[in-house]
Order: sequence, then structure tokens, then C-alpha cells
Amino acid sequence: MNILVTLNSVYVRPLLVMLKSLFMSNPQEQFTVFLMHSSLSQDEVAAIDGFVTKHGHKLQVLHVPDDFFSNAPVTMRYSKEMYYRLLAYKLLPPEVDKILYLDPDILVINTISKLYQTDISDYLFAASFHKRILAKELNMVRLNAYDMQEYYNSGVLLMNVSRQRHEIDERQIFEFIDKYKNRLVLPDQDVLNSLYSDSILALDETIYNFDTRFYHYYKLVSNGTVDMDYVFKNTCILHFCGKKKPWHKNYLGVFLSLYKYYEKQVTDEVGLLPTESEVSPTPMQLAPSLLRT
Amino acid sequence: MNILVTLNSVYVRPLLVMLKSLFMSNPQEQFTVFLMHSSLSQDEVAAIDGFVTKHGHKLQVLHVPDDFFSNAPVTMRYSKEMYYRLLAYKLLPPEVDKILYLDPDILVINTISKLYQTDISDYLFAASFHKRILAKELNMVRLNAYDMQEYYNSGVLLMNVSRQRHEIDERQIFEFIDKYKNRLVLPDQDVLNSLYSDSILALDETIYNFDTRFYHYYKLVSNGTVDMDYVFKNTCILHFCGKKKPWHKNYLGVFLSLYKYYEKQVTDEVGLLPTESEVSPTPMQLAPSLLRT
Repeated sequence: MNILVTLNSVYVRPLLVMLKSLFMSNPQEQFTVFLMHSSLSQDEVAAIDGFVTKHGHKLQVLHVPDDFFSNAPVTMRYSKEMYYRLLAYKLLPPEVDKILYLDPDILVINTISKLYQTDISDYLFAASFHKRILAKELNMVRLNAYDMQEYYNSGVLLMNVSRQRHEIDERQIFEFIDKYKNRLVLPDQDVLNSLYSDSILALDETIYNFDTRFYHYYKLVSNGTVDMDYVFKNTCILHFCGKKKPWHKNYLGVFLSLYKYYEKQVTDEVGLLPTESEVSPTPMQLAPSLLRT
Repeated sequence: MNILVTLNSVYVRPLLVMLKSLFMSNPQEQFTVFLMHSSLSQDEVAAIDGFVTKHGHKLQVLHVPDDFFSNAPVTMRYSKEMYYRLLAYKLLPPEVDKILYLDPDILVINTISKLYQTDISDYLFAASFHKRILAKELNMVRLNAYDMQEYYNSGVLLMNVSRQRHEIDERQIFEFIDKYKNRLVLPDQDVLNSLYSDSILALDETIYNFDTRFYHYYKLVSNGTVDMDYVFKNTCILHFCGKKKPWHKNYLGVFLSLYKYYEKQVTDEVGLLPTESEVSPTPMQLAPSLLRT
């Protein structure tokens, strides 16, 4: 199973926690993790490689070349890491025809083989839409995209790489960014929704992209069906969306203790890594999904 | 390492969750679990035995004989299960000189070898006192026990069985119960505190008997030291004290998601067992510690 991750130094530790949860919840699977980056140090890549290898899986590094964004508008070059997932098809080896992109602020708590086997031959992506009361209308107005069906979250993306190689045109992405540069809040997600929403197969968010901030919301709108038992039985992917992350001091949320459990498994294995509070990232160093509000 | 548990049918499932957490958090240890009971069915005992054995440990059943409480006052015979832990020394085989009693509403999240190796040669028990503002004063007045040092919680008890065989007198316990029968709220715990508080070695509750209801209280009074990182680094035993349990529908607490994680490991292994909501226990069938408020 092919997994795609993109990140910088600040998110090495959350990445390992995410991978640990992925490995623990999918003991039968063999993973090849593609790490797409431009700024990780050799030590950091070696640490990730060691971790993945120790668990019996494979790491392949996709180093983003300096001229990768030479055609992009200047605005975009500042936050280029945000678009790595959308342009990964350009760097992935030809034998990769399908890959699952996962944000680092995720826990995988059940097997994802069913997700991976989803037939997306007629689509570019499979993703979950996060529909909230009012959220859709607000986003549609902001982007002048009235034909947008739902607001897809780009933190979990099953990708039809074969099809992307023929159908995604980076110039179209660059033009879009240039046109809406002052109105983009979640740039990669806005691109995904505005340019490709017709080519996205919708996945159930309570199964494949459970926004942990909305536990009580899901429970309410499902008349109690989507409760903690439902989550542990059905949910494959918990996504810690928002600015507040479970590895931040004073984070509080329904899934904090679960996150800390997985984090502990990593700490017990590899010791402490610098956490975000010890590093001072500039805004543009932040990993794409972690800027979300 | 010897572990003592006492329960009835209603708590078979929580017991398995507790044992699973114990086994997972102590992969190097070899456990002999002593199951003291009077009402479990053969199937239930077999299920527990199968579970323990499958994990490479040993189960020994201590069936409480019908005449075990023949000398006890009538009041006590109704709730006799509450006293099993205090009278276990009478049934344990002579080679057992030390044992760790654990309530079923517990998660063990770190190694407990240090606890087990605690020198209690000069004591009958080691236990954690749960000190809360006002709680101590209230309990002291109620029991006329003004010399009581702290209010020890009986959910985690390291027992010096050799010493208990000589120093615990069941008649003394029976007399105490008879005298205070109308004033006992947490009977076994009241006995422990009133008769034996001088013979208890005090353990840090944030390490060995962390009352999950008081997460925010611990954090507050420790000026933030006892936070989630502290818990996963230091706490060995989380105790879900109180009437509301994490296996109840609509329970909400900081450690719910962690509890459900361990519960899921058990469900994946043994399938679903009847839960409390499917069984209708009479009050006196309830396990001792689970009546606590």
C-alpha cells in the first residue's frame, strides 16, 4: 500500500505518531511511504527511514527539486509545500498508480484496506467532505464557485495517480492561485474544491476523515449513533483539524488521551524528539494542513 | 507477580479490559491472576481463564465457600463481596506472601514492577490516599475516627499477605461492620481506613491510583505539572472511580477514548460480551468498588 506524506522538520514527531498508529492498526499490510519534502535535514530523513524500516515497511524519499515551482506565480512559491500533495504525481515513480495521502495530524485507528481498495478509476481523488451548517455556503460565496458540491477536506486523499498524470495541469493550478491569491484561506483545499470537485469520489467523513473537533456535533446530528463506540468500531481516520493540536501544551479534546497513548509508543521507541514548542517555525514553514482553522 | 481480582458476572468485561491493559503495559512480566468469587458461572470463569492463558499468564480460581461468612453479622452477608479483598489472605495458598489487588474499573498504562517491589515488610497494605479539599474532614467526622491520617482508596492495594495472616482478625472486621452498619458508605474502604490506616504505606495517588474524575483538579493543584504528558510518563494506574463508568453509554471524561482503545483490543480478541446495560444487577450483586460515588 502506497502512502504519501509531505512535511518539514516541525512535524517529524507528529508524522511518526501518525505512522505508528497506521502500522499498529494495519498489522497485515505492507506499506511504502513516500516522503515528499524540500527542507528536511539528512538526520531527520534518516530518523524517519529508521522508524519505517524498523516496523518492516519501506520509505522512499521524493526530494522536491529547486526548479519544481519555476512556473508558479511568486505568491505560490512562498507556500509551495501546500501544493506538494496536488503535484506529487509529477515526482512519483511510474509504477505508482494509486497512493493515499495522509496529513501528519492524523491517527489511523482501524484497517484502511477497504479505503485503499475503493474503486476510483473514474475519479482523480477520493476525499471526505466536511459539511457543517453554513460552512458550505460561506465557502461557495468566497470562491465564486457556485457549482461546488461540497467542501472536501484535503487531509486524507486517495489519489488516482495514473489519471492525474493525464488530467491534472499544473498551469491551471498556478492560474487559479494567481487569480484568487488574496482570497485563499486554505490554499490547497481551495484548489481541490474549486478545480476538481467533480472528479472527487465522496467518502464518509465519520469513517475516513473524522474531524476530532466535531465529536459532539457528529453525535448530535446522528441522534447519538456516532458516539465513541461507533468511532472505535468504524472510524479509520481521526483528523485533528484546527490550530490547536494534541501535541500542544494545554490542548484539550475528547481524543487527547488516545493521541498521547500513540505518542507514548513512539517516545518509548525513539526517545524524545524536539516538539513544536522547542522549535520556532516561521509561518511559511508550517505544514499545509496544520495551518487550518 | 500475583494479582488479585474479585468480581461477579456484571464486571467480566471490564475485568478483561483491565487485564488487557495490565498485560500490554507489562510485556516483561509473568502474572498469576487470583480470581476470588462466589457467583460466576463456569462459562465466565472459563472465558477469563482462556483470556489470561492466551496471553501467557496463569489464572487461579479462589472459590469462596458458602460458610466463609458464617461468623459475620447478617448485614455483612448481604454485601460480602465487598470484603473479599480484606479476607483474601484466608484463601490464598501459603506460598503467596505478596499480592496486588486491582479493581476492575482500572487501566494499567505503565509498568508496575516498581510498585510490586515496594518494601511493605512493616505494613499490611500499601495504598493511595485520595485527599481532596474537605473530603478528609468529612469522613473523619462520619466514622468518629479522628486519628485517621488520610482516606485511603481500596481500589489498588498492595498486600503483605504473610503479615495479614497473623495480624488481621476477621472478628475485628465483623465487629466494626456491626457497630457502624448504618454509617458505612464505602464499607470495605471504611474498614481499611478505620482499622488499618496505621499499617498502610502511602503511595502517590497520581502514580498508583489516579482518580480519572480529578484530572483537572490534579492539574490545578500541581500548577500544571500533572498534565497528560505527566500521566503517560509516570502514572501506572488510572482508576475510573465514581458511579459513571467508561463502559456506560454517554460517559464523558478525559480518558474515555483511551479506555475505548483498550476495550477495542479485547473486543477484537474475544468478541462482544454482555455489558452492564444488558444485564440487570440487583444492588447487592454490584462489585465493591463500583458502588463508589
